[in-house]
Amino acid sequence: MSPTPPERWMARALRLARHGLYTTAPNPRVGCVLVKEGRVIGEGWHERAGEPHAEIHALRNAGEAARGATAYVSLEPCSHQGRTGPCAEALVEAGVAKVVVAMRDPNPLVAGRGIERLRRAGIEVEEGVLENEARELNPGFIARMARGRPFVRMKMAMSLDGRTAMRSGESQWITGPCARREVQRLRARSSVIMTGVESVIFDNSRLTVRAEQLELDNAEAIATRQPLRVVVDSRLRLPLAAACLREPGRTLVATVEGYDGEHRERLEQAGAEIVVLPAEEGGRVDLTALLSHLATHESANEILLETGATLAGAMLDAGLVDEMQLFVAPTLLGGEARPLFELPGLTRMDEQRPLEIHDIRAVGDDWRIIASPRQRAREATSS
Amino acid sequence: MSPTPPERWMARALRLARHGLYTTAPNPRVGCVLVKEGRVIGEGWHERAGEPHAEIHALRNAGEAARGATAYVSLEPCSHQGRTGPCAEALVEAGVAKVVVAMRDPNPLVAGRGIERLRRAGIEVEEGVLENEARELNPGFIARMARGRPFVRMKMAMSLDGRTAMRSGESQWITGPCARREVQRLRARSSVIMTGVESVIFDNSRLTVRAEQLELDNAEAIATRQPLRVVVDSRLRLPLAAACLREPGRTLVATVEGYDGEHRERLEQAGAEIVVLPAEEGGRVDLTALLSHLATHESANEILLETGATLAGAMLDAGLVDEMQLFVAPTLLGGEARPLFELPGLTRMDEQRPLEIHDIRAVGDDWRIIASPRQRAREATSS
Repeated sequence: MSPTPPERWMARALRLARHGLYTTAPNPRVGCVLVKEGRVIGEGWHERAGEPHAEIHALRNAGEAARGATAYVSLEPCSHQGRTGPCAEALVEAGVAKVVVAMRDPNPLVAGRGIERLRRAGIEVEEGVLENEARELNPGFIARMARGRPFVRMKMAMSLDGRTAMRSGESQWITGPCARREVQRLRARSSVIMTGVESVIFDNSRLTVRAEQLELDNAEAIATRQPLRVVVDSRLRLPLAAACLREPGRTLVATVEGYDGEHRERLEQAGAEIVVLPAEEGGRVDLTALLSHLATHESANEILLETGATLAGAMLDAGLVDEMQLFVAPTLLGGEARPLFELPGLTRMDEQRPLEIHDIRAVGDDWRIIASPRQRAREATSS
Repeated sequence: MSPTPPERWMARALRLARHGLYTTAPNPRVGCVLVKEGRVIGEGWHERAGEPHAEIHALRNAGEAARGATAYVSLEPCSHQGRTGPCAEALVEAGVAKVVVAMRDPNPLVAGRGIERLRRAGIEVEEGVLENEARELNPGFIARMARGRPFVRMKMAMSLDGRTAMRSGESQWITGPCARREVQRLRARSSVIMTGVESVIFDNSRLTVRAEQLELDNAEAIATRQPLRVVVDSRLRLPLAAACLREPGRTLVATVEGYDGEHRERLEQAGAEIVVLPAEEGGRVDLTALLSHLATHESANEILLETGATLAGAMLDAGLVDEMQLFVAPTLLGGEARPLFELPGLTRMDEQRPLEIHDIRAVGDDWRIIASPRQRAREATSS
């Protein structure tokens, strides 16, 4: 019997890591498998910040048998003293013979230190096994560590002719229950749900994760952590009666200087947290500064952007959208209905925004298109 | 060895019929396979109006061996005296023992007569084998025979946000070469290419089949028959310089009463054929009357509608679109760009136009969505 290729064990580690999809933030999702003589002797995954890392779970699971084993970890073991001690140290102490890692720590300032610690202890280290797959599991953590900003996923629901709502704003039930379940799951995996004040005014969405709509085994546990709600509100117009202010979890209102009056006080009394950010030309919140704030002060990994044509267009124009998930309903709303994106200034074909389509598949009666902008747009300009 | 099921032979007859996809109009595409003792002893397909039908080709191909054979025909053999004599008669004379037909003649006034003739001669007849597949091969012929109007296939090329062109009208190269080849093939199988006068004015398309873009073995032969070009032109504004007037084949201009002046004469001198049709309220060409005219006077089976948002919306509103083929380019054109459909009067979500999506697949870098309106809209109303 030929030995099992390392990719197979790493695939198992990645499947384990996926158990933490909805719960590890702000930490990355990580899985670990300990293998000796072709058999799994221990495995684990990181479940929640403050709890042990994947390697610790796997080592405890294996006990004394870990000595001489090979550890397959989907992310480089940490070398820093966290709440559970550095994992590289624990692997050394347990006496594992070899460590296979899918990818290095994405923070360029610490990348390689865990591996170095292992090698210094005489442990063989192999890198890059299923690296792409490991990267796909933690796009937000990687973006925050490597680029200092979160990964932005834009979700939109549209008709086949590219419309999100009637001109009146009426938009209920464009997509069906399967698509709505997928959106709930996208919310649940995100650190932040971001929207524009106009969407709040028109749709009054709660912007919450609802356990009963997730259709997941651990739905109740997942929904106890509500993603941070962020409302982009350059002129501080958020209504006091906004539904999102009455939901569990926090609501952050991003605005610019100059709105210190009574409305602000009342919003704060109603539970809103106000953050004042630099303004772009034109007086709108600087979106790049907002993302940077969310990465730095809120440890935001993945942001789900659920908003209307104006903010969606501005985010695209600023080159700040990493992924688009378009839920397409098999219906037509006509040329009077609301567009998907406002891209002011786009008037010539050679200014079009090319996309790369990664996936198109049926979701109930609707279709989901996953795409990403093919090239970063120029710096945001107000218009 | 168990006997080959009739579906397999009929599938072969349908594959043969498909050879005539681009050439049989106004006749249907039909294939025939003669089988004796589990072996094909003759086969054929209808190639072109005025030439022998599929059954005649197959019988000639088989010769004396046809006696006692089973004939698999994708459409009920004709009973009328055409240019090549009734096929039912020929099958009787050749002494075939059994005839399997996929579907009856779609003209309700003659359906069953060919089968009756066969049965009277003591031939066993089986019906309905792969009937759905046979129907899909001749949607236009069936619509014309059964409903007195052609099958209308609407083709549109759009960006992912549902836009067909910039506001300026600029629209070149939304979709790539593979999509354009598919559009050429859609043109080639159609009896009519239909458009609105505004599309002619803005795009000045030639609306022709170009042999070199078909990428088919018999491309040159196919392109010798140019589909009839039909321009919907309620106020007779077609420019004398329109490119389509200088191409091989006929151009029919559909208008209403009241435009008998010099421009009409010049258009006729330039080769345009003018047809005057009833007007709807508002003075626009009655589209139902136009389709009826094309079925009756031009024997039009399949119409390819290639036009802008106004005529496309009016055709949809009138419930006259049978199939939509949307070629979707992975790009965004923004909210200022031209919409796919104008559906005036559609302002409430409960008035949306539900579609049924039949197929979504990649065509080069683009995607093709095949859909159909889920329910007929009310009668067309001008707005």
